[in-house]
Amino acid sequence: MNEFELIARLTKSLPTNKNVLVGAGDDCAVLDLGVPEKLILFKTDAVVEGIHFTKETPPEKIGRKALARCLSDIAAMAGTPTAALVTMALPENFDAEFVAKIYDGLNTLAEKNGAAIVGGETTTNPERILISIALIGTVPRGKQILRNGAKAGDAIFVTGELGGSLAGRHLEFEPRLAEARWLAEHFSIHALMDLSDGLAGDLRHILNASKVGAEILKSALPISRAAKLRAKENSAAKPAVVAALTDGEDFELLFTIASKDAVKLLDAWKKKFPKLKLSCIGKIVAGDGILIRDKMGSHKFNAHGYVHFT
Amino acid sequence: MNEFELIARLTKSLPTNKNVLVGAGDDCAVLDLGVPEKLILFKTDAVVEGIHFTKETPPEKIGRKALARCLSDIAAMAGTPTAALVTMALPENFDAEFVAKIYDGLNTLAEKNGAAIVGGETTTNPERILISIALIGTVPRGKQILRNGAKAGDAIFVTGELGGSLAGRHLEFEPRLAEARWLAEHFSIHALMDLSDGLAGDLRHILNASKVGAEILKSALPISRAAKLRAKENSAAKPAVVAALTDGEDFELLFTIASKDAVKLLDAWKKKFPKLKLSCIGKIVAGDGILIRDKMGSHKFNAHGYVHFT
Repeated sequence: MNEFELIARLTKSLPTNKNVLVGAGDDCAVLDLGVPEKLILFKTDAVVEGIHFTKETPPEKIGRKALARCLSDIAAMAGTPTAALVTMALPENFDAEFVAKIYDGLNTLAEKNGAAIVGGETTTNPERILISIALIGTVPRGKQILRNGAKAGDAIFVTGELGGSLAGRHLEFEPRLAEARWLAEHFSIHALMDLSDGLAGDLRHILNASKVGAEILKSALPISRAAKLRAKENSAAKPAVVAALTDGEDFELLFTIASKDAVKLLDAWKKKFPKLKLSCIGKIVAGDGILIRDKMGSHKFNAHGYVHFT
Repeated sequence: MNEFELIARLTKSLPTNKNVLVGAGDDCAVLDLGVPEKLILFKTDAVVEGIHFTKETPPEKIGRKALARCLSDIAAMAGTPTAALVTMALPENFDAEFVAKIYDGLNTLAEKNGAAIVGGETTTNPERILISIALIGTVPRGKQILRNGAKAGDAIFVTGELGGSLAGRHLEFEPRLAEARWLAEHFSIHALMDLSDGLAGDLRHILNASKVGAEILKSALPISRAAKLRAKENSAAKPAVVAALTDGEDFELLFTIASKDAVKLLDAWKKKFPKLKLSCIGKIVAGDGILIRDKMGSHKFNAHGYVHFT
């Protein structure tokens, strides 16, 4: 049983109440706590030594990454972060300087994004550092964007470049908060999420939630320099296009929009965010699953994105 | 450096914003998100295999305990829980049945207390299970009770009985949510917290936050049957009174109230909660630290409550 199968089983019958608009299964939970013009976003995310960072990772970057991942989930709802709690599980012989530097990285990114750090907890995890961030954010009522709104005919977009994140970007990426809010304000975005487990795997979440399929144009995939370099230098590595489809930790935005709005969006985007690539990589189709279209035709893409526990 | 020294260092200069009424240092963070009549409570708490439970602990009780600890912190602010996220870090060879039963225990307690489970995350922690709960709650504006309001002359109360929790109670305790809300509604409670690290250690948090001291009447301490039994059966164990002062995981309420209200409170409590003991264990005094008064006079109590990392 992998991570997704376990989650599917566990989330089948969770307790709910009148405050819950969106429970398990989207980038954040969405709560209505009675704020007149806003809904509350709620998310946790953990990083673990040996999995999401190594003993050699600079501590500031560990803290930065821990929070950035969670901020990316707030972006994936077109929200704004408000306050975070930090749970730090540490071996008993922890180095206080190292831990303080983890906080430095975390605090700096929080401050930059207007998020408060309102406490948390330290506990013991004897073998390795684990950091879990819990984050509250807000989104204007009606402006939250879920995964279940993609429609056949929609154009599919991604920000930035994909693949090869582990070469360094995973420690330095910018959560796309401003970009997502701008999208929600100016366009009717049908479905939105952030890329954490790889384009193919993550796109499937939108497809399953929206009960549609997708056709991806291979030549339109924005492949990162890091993924190309890795494929070139190491013949045993994934081909760059597969890296772009399946590497995890891109933390870019993936969204769909009516195809009639696609050109207008691309024009407005170039003016607003001239430094950040926006690529139309394909379209939503009736059916299910992912087709990859290249010069040879369309092929079912069956490989999963990055799946934990496999 | 122990847990409390580390926390003191890390929480010195955390980023904040206009939404934060209470940040690190109380039982929960308190946020003003613009709900007209309510403030938002925010808390995380983690349990770790080998520390807060063992390989032999029934999985339902592990899940129950993980959530109950967090609920107890909401009680410590006189609040009501709304929604929780569950982060479960699991070894790669996890048993899906076992994990499902952890959720069963957690879901049952959530439902009983009106809290929704709105998602969470599974990740890998190769050597042991770690469960972190993030919880959002609410409290009527002005009714939140912090740790910093104790005044010289106040009577000090605890609910239930203290010590010996590890004999079983730590897996089965009831978070004192209804009791705390009733106290906040009907009395002017000056300071309130829940007991997690042992009475002496936790009382010091109130004393330090309120800049006062306390005199505890040894004979008034409500010592649990479990603590008495353990002291009797094992001559190497702590004396029962020391267990009541220093054992962790009681998860009872500790609070102070003007001494003029003490008798009225005790009378009303007996009618409202006839099955739950309420004990006046001493008084708040000017100065600092804890004095224990017995037949021989008053003694400084220097031992700490349960401190992680020592």
